[in-house]
This record gives sequence, structure tokens and C-alpha cells, in this order.
Amino acid sequence: MVDHKMLKEIHEANRQFYLAFESLDIKQMDQVWAQEDQVYCVHPGWDLRAGWPAVRDSWVQIFNHALSMRFAITAIKVNIEGDCAWVTCMENITSMMDGSPQHSRVLATNIFRKQEGGWKVVHHHGSPVFRPATPEERMH
Amino acid sequence: MVDHKMLKEIHEANRQFYLAFESLDIKQMDQVWAQEDQVYCVHPGWDLRAGWPAVRDSWVQIFNHALSMRFAITAIKVNIEGDCAWVTCMENITSMMDGSPQHSRVLATNIFRKQEGGWKVVHHHGSPVFRPATPEERMH
Repeated sequence: MVDHKMLKEIHEANRQFYLAFESLDIKQMDQVWAQEDQVYCVHPGWDLRAGWPAVRDSWVQIFNHALSMRFAITAIKVNIEGDCAWVTCMENITSMMDGSPQHSRVLATNIFRKQEGGWKVVHHHGSPVFRPATPEERMH
Repeated sequence: MVDHKMLKEIHEANRQFYLAFESLDIKQMDQVWAQEDQVYCVHPGWDLRAGWPAVRDSWVQIFNHALSMRFAITAIKVNIEGDCAWVTCMENITSMMDGSPQHSRVLATNIFRKQEGGWKVVHHHGSPVFRPATPEERMH
């Protein structure tokens, strides 16, 4: 049985994560993550960041170096098991680099855990995709 | 409270996954995965594989092309939430290519779900690491 209310909550939590990413504002990232020792983050090509201080620092570094990032999220797949949920999706990213837009794609696994304040990110794993974009992905 | 028995089970399930990987025998992979529509797999640089038939096919392809793979797994981190658990670890891989050993490292997120037959893999996400190996990793 699919719990549609919960499914909607996970989609919304995932959306909020990418809105925080686009905002390039660490305070927004603070809102969507569980700020615990047991959170993990892998950015494309980066080493694992373990624990909230190290994870937060990785976002600060990214936000300090990015001028503008826009995400079109496709192929979203959601799994729920009790108070934990994992999402896979394709991040179709447009970044401004030296005044011209650059496109890249990253496959992500995002894990959420239900807490008092709602569903929070406890794990983000993004990895580069080495194949040409599909027509759907090129639209973004 | 850490449930040490369950923690041991997850470590063992993760170990069995890599033993199946090393075996290059699809029948061993069949044993460790949940054979369901809702399983996902991302190999380094590959696109997402969704659903057991597509996930299984990816292993068949890898096993058909690999001569020998040895895994030394380091930096294992385990999280448990009810009947679901996720593991992050570094795969220090030695493969035989044209008669000489090649070393590579992959960061993995593995998600397990508890079922009647024990903890089964429902998600594997491996991504390349673009930094020099640490002394610990070089030992393998």
C-alpha cells in the first residue's frame, strides 16, 4: 500500500533540498538537514564527508565558489520504509561559469529520516554521469 | 541505543554483497539482493538501473567483462532505522587487466532492507573518487 500523503511529504522534502541548494545560502541548507553525527555526504568526485560539521563545511565551500546554480530534477524515484525514505533522481544542472551557462548531470541518492520537524536529509550521494543527455534532460 | 546484534547483521550483509561481487557469479548476487521492482543500482559513471531485471543485467554485464576483482573495504559506516539500514564505505579495488593489477577506489552507498530471508540489498550507488589514496587505502 502506497501512503500518498507520505509520498508527497518525501517529494516535498527532496524539492526543499534542491531549493536550498539553488539558494546557495547555508542557512537554508541548515533547515533541510538533520544536524547529527550520523549524516553523510558525497559530492561528485569528492571524498565522503561524515558528521554534520564536515557535511555543512562542504556546502559552505560549494556555495562560496558557485555564482548561480539551477536544478531541473528528473527521474525521481521514492522508496519509503517506516521512518526512513530514499530518493534517486537525476540533477540536470545549469551553472554560470565565466558568464556563460554550463550544463552537467549528476545522479543522486538522497536519504531522509522522519523527525519531529519533518523529513530531514541524512545522506546525499551525488555522482557524475558519463553518457550523452536524453532529449528530456536536454530540455532543461 | 545501538543494537549490536543488528549492527553485526548489517556488517555481515555488506560483506556478503562484496563476496558476491568478487565471485563474479550472478547466482551469488541473486542471493544478496531483494529481487523487486523497487531496487536501484548506480555503477560508477553508469546511468541508474531501476528494478531487479535491469539491476541484475548490469551485474551480468560487469561479470562478463571482469577477469578478477578483489575488494578491500574500508571506512565502513552503518546507520539503522527500523527495518532499513544504509552503509557507506570505500571500495579499494584490485582488478586484473591485461595481466597486470589495476587499482581503483569507489565510494559506495548501500541500502539494505530486512526481509524474511534476512537483510537484502535494495540500493547500491558507487561513484569514482578523484583524489590520491591515503596510506591506509594504499595498503590494500
